[in-house]
Amino acid sequence: MSAAETEFGPRPGEETVDLPAAYDAGLYFVGRVRTPWTARADCPRNSAQSDAVCTLEVDPRFAPALRELSGTTHLIVLYWMDRAPRNLVAQQPRHAPAPRGTFALRSPARPNPIAVSVVDLLGIDGASLRVRGLDCLDGTPLLDIKPYFASTDARPQARVGWRETDAVPGTDAAREAELSAGAGGRAAP
Amino acid sequence: MSAAETEFGPRPGEETVDLPAAYDAGLYFVGRVRTPWTARADCPRNSAQSDAVCTLEVDPRFAPALRELSGTTHLIVLYWMDRAPRNLVAQQPRHAPAPRGTFALRSPARPNPIAVSVVDLLGIDGASLRVRGLDCLDGTPLLDIKPYFASTDARPQARVGWRETDAVPGTDAAREAELSAGAGGRAAP
Repeated sequence: MSAAETEFGPRPGEETVDLPAAYDAGLYFVGRVRTPWTARADCPRNSAQSDAVCTLEVDPRFAPALRELSGTTHLIVLYWMDRAPRNLVAQQPRHAPAPRGTFALRSPARPNPIAVSVVDLLGIDGASLRVRGLDCLDGTPLLDIKPYFASTDARPQARVGWRETDAVPGTDAAREAELSAGAGGRAAP
Repeated sequence: MSAAETEFGPRPGEETVDLPAAYDAGLYFVGRVRTPWTARADCPRNSAQSDAVCTLEVDPRFAPALRELSGTTHLIVLYWMDRAPRNLVAQQPRHAPAPRGTFALRSPARPNPIAVSVVDLLGIDGASLRVRGLDCLDGTPLLDIKPYFASTDARPQARVGWRETDAVPGTDAAREAELSAGAGGRAAP
């Protein structure tokens, strides 16, 4: 049993699958995410719970890819939740009445643990970007940076069915039920 | 020279890098995206240019991960742009005055060609999801499905600096300059 499996072992009602024997494609880490959080317990539950300024450190090899990024107010950041188990297909969030499918959650535990976070771009210093809106562990591998397009990416009217049955929107319970995409852990531990 | 390099060979001013010798992590394809487009030239330039209903076909292995997804109005879909080159760090969009860094573009050509699309969830039939808002080739490998949270994912006020210098927002040129994230190709070909 791996460390991840020990740390995140299934709870009652949770469901795991046998993963495929081989990968279908490969990823390059293009840099690292620098945050104030070095232990999972210290990470905010989600990005709305912290104003911390974090840094995206892009490897020198990929630094030319940052050209013309200034003037962009928001970014989509993809990073790799390398401590999360990949075989959980149903998970039991703390406040939920029953387990939920992994694709209905933002838990880091998923077949491909790619986190998607929208951040404010505060400044660019060479190959380092200062951003606000992350909640992950210091040192998390960076996969991609994309400009955020309001026209195709912003859906303020979006609703999540199970959030409305769990708790009154806007309360702490509802916020917690959103599940951190970045705490390096899993659904509402 | 690979097929991708032939098809997408650098234009003047574009910049490539030597990629790392090995991958840092591996991906599982969890399903396929079914769309009406079987040739790159037929794909809409971006998701706003098509009302087509597409299908996310999740592999039976991962189908239990869809539990409790109903009632969610919008999804973030991650898929793998397997025909795009990965070594371009600066690209020349058709309407841009100069090459731009890959991380300032939504072009599929990037070190980790993971596309991020926000879609409307129209219906669920077993392990198939009917969605609107994709622009990729039929058969594109599916990586992940996440519920869209307006509270953390919607930023209607976001702006992209280079879009404003390129063209008047809302015009065809501005829309084209957004670059398709999903056409399986590259920046505004």
